[in-house]
Amino acid sequence: MVRASPAGEPVAIICGGGSLPSAVAEAVVRRDRRPVMFAVRGWADPNVVERYAHHWIAIGQAGRFFRLAQAEHCREALFIGTLLRPPLSQIRLDWRTLWLMPRIVRFFRGGDDRLLSGVASLLEEGGLRVIGLHELAPEVIVPEGVLGHYRPSARDNADITRALELIAALGPFDVGQAAIVANNHVLAVEAAEGTDNMLARVAELRRQRRVTTPPGVGVLVKAPKPGQDRRFDLPAIGPQTVEGVARAGLAGLAVAAGGTIIAEIAEVIAAADRAKIFLVGVGGDAAK
Amino acid sequence: MVRASPAGEPVAIICGGGSLPSAVAEAVVRRDRRPVMFAVRGWADPNVVERYAHHWIAIGQAGRFFRLAQAEHCREALFIGTLLRPPLSQIRLDWRTLWLMPRIVRFFRGGDDRLLSGVASLLEEGGLRVIGLHELAPEVIVPEGVLGHYRPSARDNADITRALELIAALGPFDVGQAAIVANNHVLAVEAAEGTDNMLARVAELRRQRRVTTPPGVGVLVKAPKPGQDRRFDLPAIGPQTVEGVARAGLAGLAVAAGGTIIAEIAEVIAAADRAKIFLVGVGGDAAK
Repeated sequence: MVRASPAGEPVAIICGGGSLPSAVAEAVVRRDRRPVMFAVRGWADPNVVERYAHHWIAIGQAGRFFRLAQAEHCREALFIGTLLRPPLSQIRLDWRTLWLMPRIVRFFRGGDDRLLSGVASLLEEGGLRVIGLHELAPEVIVPEGVLGHYRPSARDNADITRALELIAALGPFDVGQAAIVANNHVLAVEAAEGTDNMLARVAELRRQRRVTTPPGVGVLVKAPKPGQDRRFDLPAIGPQTVEGVARAGLAGLAVAAGGTIIAEIAEVIAAADRAKIFLVGVGGDAAK
Repeated sequence: MVRASPAGEPVAIICGGGSLPSAVAEAVVRRDRRPVMFAVRGWADPNVVERYAHHWIAIGQAGRFFRLAQAEHCREALFIGTLLRPPLSQIRLDWRTLWLMPRIVRFFRGGDDRLLSGVASLLEEGGLRVIGLHELAPEVIVPEGVLGHYRPSARDNADITRALELIAALGPFDVGQAAIVANNHVLAVEAAEGTDNMLARVAELRRQRRVTTPPGVGVLVKAPKPGQDRRFDLPAIGPQTVEGVARAGLAGLAVAAGGTIIAEIAEVIAAADRAKIFLVGVGGDAAK
């Protein structure tokens, strides 16, 4: 559902790493709204955020963030891009953050889900509604169905189902937005390393002949954890994901329709077609 | 339970990679029984198996294996060491294997559990009882309790519980005999890459500051999958596991008591003490 908003109304875009914040800012501009980038020091890419109105903030500068967001008249905020658990040395505390600290520490002791939904509730208390990309820019969310030229086989579909079930089973552990299954055999489960690393690992295991399914068999599946707060931390794929899938010798990739971000969807589909791999948005319970 | 057996009775030891087959052969000799090594070509280490009576066999030589086992008067067989899914090019078929092929192909389409218990049933039809290491040499199986000088903290114990629950949840997917959890956060889940690779990954993520829990927090937990056939493919640890845990900056490692192999237990305990990490055998439902 696309939200109707007054033209020119600003949106605070809290930017982690990667190129996604730029695609999101473009989507905001297309809607005649004004992106205000809050670039997180150590994560955000200056080349991406400095093309728009922007402020640099450090993790821990809650007071500075709220002050700037208010000065910019932002009433809505959007999280986008990689935001890993920061090393304590990179945290810059201000008074407001200190005051919030006992609760933040509690969030940190949970998994990522808890950390993120905790941070969201703090923002909302500060007068900023946290919105999701699916509300603001549904065109960067993967639709259901086969997206490129190639289609999954019956065996691929069975592998996709198994991977979705595995991701669902890992839900309570706040881990695993992705897995690789080949011919019903689970080759890799993603945790802290990220999808690109996991794909490189399978490519390497294949080189060492420790993965022995023939090339062109197996799927990468990405899906949000069940119950995941879709206002942030949705899985994302890009052209590099497609290249990683090809290097890992898989048949293709399946991502949760309505729950996965592709910033440059035409580019990603073209990359999949060139690599002769399928790209499909899947629905079903496990992906919901 | 240690099985009583006639002195001198031979045991067929089907040897995959690593040094475990040697420790098992020693345990067989200590019981006045005769180890007959069936060294699997491409996996078994000649330096390990050639110290004992041995035959080299290729995957697929079922006829040759049964003929040799009968000539050696073996009535029991034991699987030990790494036996990965073989690349098809390394398989040498004989007539008996061809005859068994439709069933073997069916086993291959399942996970490792199904492959291994399928192979076990074929051996038993051929007159060889498949026995487990826990029956023949319980001294190489990890006992319950703290094994070295260091003890897990309350936080470590919480991480151990979470990892055991995760491994149990992955049971239906025939994957994941190991996981790394730090401060309630799942850092890594093992699939095809093996434990040493998984530990190296966490060490690398820490170097890249993508794992930000402080050094000395977190545990490696290894446990058989629930329902796993303990006659083969039990998880194993050695001194290199302890070194990997230390390099990954974890507090220690917990393994399923009664369900994990340590070939050189005194060496492994000494290595853990030197590295100042704990080593504990854990019971509980998830480990059973």
